[in-house]
Amino acid sequence: MAQGFTVWMTGMSGAGKSTIAAQLTRELEARGRLVDVLDGDIVRTHLSKGLGFSKEDRDTNILRIAFVASLLTRHGAAVITAAISPYIETRNQAREMIGPGFVEVYVRCPIEELTRRDVKGLYAKALRGEIANFTGVSDPYEEPEWPEVIVDTHLETVGESTAKIIAALEQRGYI
Amino acid sequence: MAQGFTVWMTGMSGAGKSTIAAQLTRELEARGRLVDVLDGDIVRTHLSKGLGFSKEDRDTNILRIAFVASLLTRHGAAVITAAISPYIETRNQAREMIGPGFVEVYVRCPIEELTRRDVKGLYAKALRGEIANFTGVSDPYEEPEWPEVIVDTHLETVGESTAKIIAALEQRGYI
Repeated sequence: MAQGFTVWMTGMSGAGKSTIAAQLTRELEARGRLVDVLDGDIVRTHLSKGLGFSKEDRDTNILRIAFVASLLTRHGAAVITAAISPYIETRNQAREMIGPGFVEVYVRCPIEELTRRDVKGLYAKALRGEIANFTGVSDPYEEPEWPEVIVDTHLETVGESTAKIIAALEQRGYI
Repeated sequence: MAQGFTVWMTGMSGAGKSTIAAQLTRELEARGRLVDVLDGDIVRTHLSKGLGFSKEDRDTNILRIAFVASLLTRHGAAVITAAISPYIETRNQAREMIGPGFVEVYVRCPIEELTRRDVKGLYAKALRGEIANFTGVSDPYEEPEWPEVIVDTHLETVGESTAKIIAALEQRGYI
């Protein structure tokens, strides 16, 4: 059985989590791994329909992702999560649930760059006060203190960020 | 990688699903398999806190179990689910989501025997009209039409029921 792991990406909306997840999926599949991506859309459809964006609902959502990731990791899966997961304490609970194989990746991007990109127009709306509980504007984002990997998406290409994650997985003997 | 499968047990409260799941787990682990049991308690804690017993909530719960089981089955897991799962249509959706490896086990027991056992006193309460949406009393249980296995827990020992399931898994080449 392959060595299971969970690449836990955390970062603000628009920082590049899903884009990196897609590229990382391709590279891991090219190495013969079975990959599961647990991103916001999949999780809201299959695990958390009905949850909102309060701290409690966000935490419930994150712990469900962690529960599923922990089961899969035990079976040798290559799991990639791509949820904002803004709270340190909840991410640390995920780390404990998943145990060995947990690799936290901080997908970092300055708010100025995020509001400039603003592909979905969400930052503009949030800055006008039209979205409650918007992470980084009207709701906190707590930066990771000791992530295994930091990628800076305003300075690196997607390929460079992905290569950093691949290197971290190789270093730990997970791939 | 091992051939993944999901033993989907369905049957009324008290019919013996969890008892058989525990015995089946031991036998599969003795054969070197990694087993995940998704029973009512685990699922209510980790996946479905807040859901009730309306048809819609039950269906949501079952489809979450099916989602997780489908991910695990793809990775070679031996999954056992032990939720009442009273509706044919929802179980068939689970069958479709999980695909090859889905083995439906009808854990059958007459209501007279269930009301006689009534370990938790729930049938007595339900028959007095004190529990709304109690499967088999105030809520429907739709029997499987074509389950892969039927176990009759008022006629068989736990060992006999488990052996039937093991035989069905062997026949299909899953173990």
